[in-house]
Amino acid sequence: MAVFVLVHGSWHDGSAWDAVVRHLESKGHKVFAPTVAGHGKGAPRNVTHADCTRSLVEFITGNSLSDIILVGHSFGGTLISKAAEAIPGSIRRLVYQNAFVLRDGLSLLDEIPPEYVALFSQLAKQSGDNTVLPPFPVWREAFINDGDLGLAKAAYARLSPEPFQPFADKLDMKKFYSLEIPRSFLNCTEDIALPPGEWGWHPRMSGRLGLCRLVQMAGSHEVMFTNPQGLAEKILEAGRD
Amino acid sequence: MAVFVLVHGSWHDGSAWDAVVRHLESKGHKVFAPTVAGHGKGAPRNVTHADCTRSLVEFITGNSLSDIILVGHSFGGTLISKAAEAIPGSIRRLVYQNAFVLRDGLSLLDEIPPEYVALFSQLAKQSGDNTVLPPFPVWREAFINDGDLGLAKAAYARLSPEPFQPFADKLDMKKFYSLEIPRSFLNCTEDIALPPGEWGWHPRMSGRLGLCRLVQMAGSHEVMFTNPQGLAEKILEAGRD
Amino acid sequence: MAVFVLVHGSWHDGSAWDAVVRHLESKGHKVFAPTVAGHGKGAPRNVTHADCTRSLVEFITGNSLSDIILVGHSFGGTLISKAAEAIPGSIRRLVYQNAFVLRDGLSLLDEIPPEYVALFSQLAKQSGDNTVLPPFPVWREAFINDGDLGLAKAAYARLSPEPFQPFADKLDMKKFYSLEIPRSFLNCTEDIALPPGEWGWHPRMSGRLGLCRLVQMAGSHEVMFTNPQGLAEKILEAGRD
Repeated sequence: MAVFVLVHGSWHDGSAWDAVVRHLESKGHKVFAPTVAGHGKGAPRNVTHADCTRSLVEFITGNSLSDIILVGHSFGGTLISKAAEAIPGSIRRLVYQNAFVLRDGLSLLDEIPPEYVALFSQLAKQSGDNTVLPPFPVWREAFINDGDLGLAKAAYARLSPEPFQPFADKLDMKKFYSLEIPRSFLNCTEDIALPPGEWGWHPRMSGRLGLCRLVQMAGSHEVMFTNPQGLAEKILEAGRD
Repeated sequence: MAVFVLVHGSWHDGSAWDAVVRHLESKGHKVFAPTVAGHGKGAPRNVTHADCTRSLVEFITGNSLSDIILVGHSFGGTLISKAAEAIPGSIRRLVYQNAFVLRDGLSLLDEIPPEYVALFSQLAKQSGDNTVLPPFPVWREAFINDGDLGLAKAAYARLSPEPFQPFADKLDMKKFYSLEIPRSFLNCTEDIALPPGEWGWHPRMSGRLGLCRLVQMAGSHEVMFTNPQGLAEKILEAGRD
Repeated sequence: MAVFVLVHGSWHDGSAWDAVVRHLESKGHKVFAPTVAGHGKGAPRNVTHADCTRSLVEFITGNSLSDIILVGHSFGGTLISKAAEAIPGSIRRLVYQNAFVLRDGLSLLDEIPPEYVALFSQLAKQSGDNTVLPPFPVWREAFINDGDLGLAKAAYARLSPEPFQPFADKLDMKKFYSLEIPRSFLNCTEDIALPPGEWGWHPRMSGRLGLCRLVQMAGSHEVMFTNPQGLAEKILEAGRD
């Protein structure tokens, strides 16, 4: 049986994986879903990308985890990449679930469409504490498009504002691109959180990973809420040797 | 329960939706599938795009329909867009099923590959009444590729020649692009009526709709014939709030 | 009932189709899966592309087969195209399963990404007999990404080195592009043997076939091993009139 560490994306915390964790555990796996620094209701928001990464690395080393399958969703992709630089020997495989794979020297803001940059920058300015939260219509149509309205609302209530600074931090990815840890990209075919085409997840992000296993499933960006069992099965397919 | 108005595309008439209507009605919805002016066996073909739109708008207002989910298939996408300009207050959501979303000032002929423009122009000239009907091999391979030969032939027998003028009419879409009616794009993943890639339905057409829910299903352009129950289920998913 | 001739790709021999053949035969079809010249364990490797094509054509004519559905997988796509030039009257339909459709005057090496050209060229030089075999990690991640490790290893053990010369031979395809034999493209949606996007199978290869039926299924390049029954069903859908 394997050890999984599931890393959430923006606006989420570790509890977003709850139903996925249950399914993976029911198959006999050991599963962790830490909340990254600056995330979760009530946590202080004044964090950098390095703070986020450090909290993830400390979780893994603090729990003496090794030989892990490290799964990153969305923004979490930037974190598992940097964590892989810090503790490559602890990681059996990296799994990117519709996740960012940044080019060397760039920030997340450099990798999203101009309209999202404008929206997030404006929201951050208006927030008073340099955070952003997507307006409900954007969440409902572009993030959880495969859920019904009730689920869309319930999941939205679980979100919390995202620190803007980690979106803006430019990352040195040189060591990451020299690593030879096996990697998989799990693509949900109805994920339009990034618009399909020029700015899409796949093959734009997946194509940067070199030799990389592709696994696909139906579903939106928030398939952890809309189909957690299906997602767990595909995480197993993406994570196996 | 919701009110659906289903708008057929070229060569079809309202009866193309018969099996879809039955499935939607069996779920308790109110469903209408009018035949657009210039369409249906025996109808006069000398219509413009404005005539087609007017007949749709008059159907909706004549039946005092409101709060409708307006679904357009293929050419029908151009009609629901113009109808939305005319009666925006009557529409709860627009659903484009592998449908045209024209750019401002362009015609349908401006949005299809040159080989189709050449084929349709030639067919219109030869027709004697400025209409076009796709040759059976084109229909069988590129429109109803997921059906068997018997179904392909039976469905072809239900088609009637399409007035060419509405393909050529250039449309003012400025008001449409200012509307904020919620919208969805329903993409059948094996639809090659427009060739995948540069000239494809998705994300070329869907990407013009701004914030827009994506729903996908397996199937060809003629999934209303090859899988009407599956289509009805996806129309519900695309049409819900 | 129909007559199928299934043409394997690189590294494979006719036995790769065994499970697919059984499923097709169980539906009452007549099925042949010849091993192409220069392929199969122990066969001499000093063959050209013309030798490969000739062996296929001689198999078809030697068995007096007519009205066949000729299916080519991967490299096999180049063979069924050239066989179609030689014996067009014997073929009812061509089916390309994630297969190469070469442009006139080009070789397979002209149609794959530079990193694969470099890898295969180096492997051929090192081989001593001008052959190539993909390293296991490439096979496991990019060819049979939907199989488990045990199946990946078992299938790898069945491969044999591929003659490099047929990859390099530039093919005259002028007659092929004048043929009007019906054709289908069967695309497995997780096939990343060619990387998705600019260098991908679909719509790059399928788009060269003119009027061509598209059929899709989930699966990797090696779906003949990971889901032979599903593949047989889709070959029937691609191959029917």
